[in-house]
Amino acid sequence: MTDYADVTDQTILIVGVGLIGASFGLALKASGFRGEIIGYARTHDTLNTALALGVIDRAEPELAKAVVGADVVLITTPMLAMPDILKTLAAHVARGTVITDGGSVKASFVEAARVHFGDSLDRVVPGHPIAGREHSGVAAGDATLFQNHRVILTPLAETDSTATALVRALWQRCGGEVVELDIARHDALLAATSHLPHFAAFALVHMLSERPEQDRIFEFAAGGFRDFTRVASSDPVMWRDIALCNTDAVLAELDAYVAALQHMREQVARGDGQALEAKFITARETRNAWLSELEDPEDSAT
Amino acid sequence: MTDYADVTDQTILIVGVGLIGASFGLALKASGFRGEIIGYARTHDTLNTALALGVIDRAEPELAKAVVGADVVLITTPMLAMPDILKTLAAHVARGTVITDGGSVKASFVEAARVHFGDSLDRVVPGHPIAGREHSGVAAGDATLFQNHRVILTPLAETDSTATALVRALWQRCGGEVVELDIARHDALLAATSHLPHFAAFALVHMLSERPEQDRIFEFAAGGFRDFTRVASSDPVMWRDIALCNTDAVLAELDAYVAALQHMREQVARGDGQALEAKFITARETRNAWLSELEDPEDSAT
Repeated sequence: MTDYADVTDQTILIVGVGLIGASFGLALKASGFRGEIIGYARTHDTLNTALALGVIDRAEPELAKAVVGADVVLITTPMLAMPDILKTLAAHVARGTVITDGGSVKASFVEAARVHFGDSLDRVVPGHPIAGREHSGVAAGDATLFQNHRVILTPLAETDSTATALVRALWQRCGGEVVELDIARHDALLAATSHLPHFAAFALVHMLSERPEQDRIFEFAAGGFRDFTRVASSDPVMWRDIALCNTDAVLAELDAYVAALQHMREQVARGDGQALEAKFITARETRNAWLSELEDPEDSAT
Repeated sequence: MTDYADVTDQTILIVGVGLIGASFGLALKASGFRGEIIGYARTHDTLNTALALGVIDRAEPELAKAVVGADVVLITTPMLAMPDILKTLAAHVARGTVITDGGSVKASFVEAARVHFGDSLDRVVPGHPIAGREHSGVAAGDATLFQNHRVILTPLAETDSTATALVRALWQRCGGEVVELDIARHDALLAATSHLPHFAAFALVHMLSERPEQDRIFEFAAGGFRDFTRVASSDPVMWRDIALCNTDAVLAELDAYVAALQHMREQVARGDGQALEAKFITARETRNAWLSELEDPEDSAT
């Protein structure tokens, strides 16, 4: 495998030029990267916008052609689109090309990679940038999206360390802080801190949207509601796929959350102010301690 | 009762100079109000800070003295402190003084007002500015807090219209958009759009804080988590009191939310991607439609 010490002029294929893919392209270019960035997407509209915004250097509407000459393929589609993409890539990709992704569930990506790249897992580097916005699509791309954000890589036992080093170097160029994590641990942690809040926000807004007086309800909503529900403006297909791919961990978190709400409900029902105050104090202190460790605590990126 | 057409030089007593009380004082002063603003608070520290920040003109650590000469008393303490305050006020306030509040639960304020001001409810104007921040205390006061925010008044059948007009005029001076609402309707609406999100955020952070691996969990939390949990940094005593004062409506909303989460859980468990996607689409469209009607959609005030 190539020596990737100097990551400046590779050919990169971005498969799925949405928020993450577009931000990756923009961030890489902003970093002084001199290689070529090829974009593949399902629609010509997306590719045309990506070209117009300078996200990619070249658009290629056929995946089998797009991958020719690529040193690295970054897949940033919704999770359920990945198996078919991996299948096509496997049939057309050169042996030395590194395959990585930006998906929110690592076990399901790895499962599909084992099916289609079972004989060359040394070049597979599962990844996940912990960054996002409630706005989706190529036009939401932002060169600063990954700055001061974690990028988790979950290399396999089979993954070649030079492939991991290349992917790491690319994300570092984008401003990301790269860390490695076990696959199951990633999926469990993200279910708690990302997937559950998204589903909880979707559930709240959906619940209120079904009430006959919904206009009145939203008329009196304010900033707390806006912040709590911000992630409910996220891409429905992306989050559908996460629910379907990280099912066990998501179910465990939904169950734990329902139990926590029911516990609080009992405290409210019996008027246990002491228990409620103690709970709220712990929550506030925990959150504030976490915020104090962030480099950019007021940033509103997801 | 006085004619309040020209609201410029009244004497205003703010009881409880926290985020809301301090912001009210600052906003009133910024509006060119030429009257006197007296502050009462439980601690000398709060009063000294309020004086130093120019929130009030005069500090009065004894409530019985503070109320002398006041045209309007605005009570902005946590809900459970209000009955005792109303009791003391009733014993010392002049007959013409208007009594209003900024509490998040209107039925419990009205109940206490009926006990202590049962013979002069004409001057009682229950109110609630739909504005806030996760930061609390006098130092968080902000003259712009109420700009473009609703202020709900829930006048009683007994309330004199000139008293309501005075309170309305004061909030308008602060930049608020004053609307009137039925008491029970207010408490039900706010339970859905404000109280539930706060308790849901407190519950999530508290749940995660109890896990042995909590440091790791928060290490990988990002902006979505931060926004969802922003209101979990709110004042614990204020929110304890809201839970204890709006119990029925809060329980109804917690139950409805648990049911909504369980319904979503079943959809995830059976892999019903179509139902989940439809739910997420509805939530996103509902939220975005609501946002599009806000004057300041990106403001992060609660």
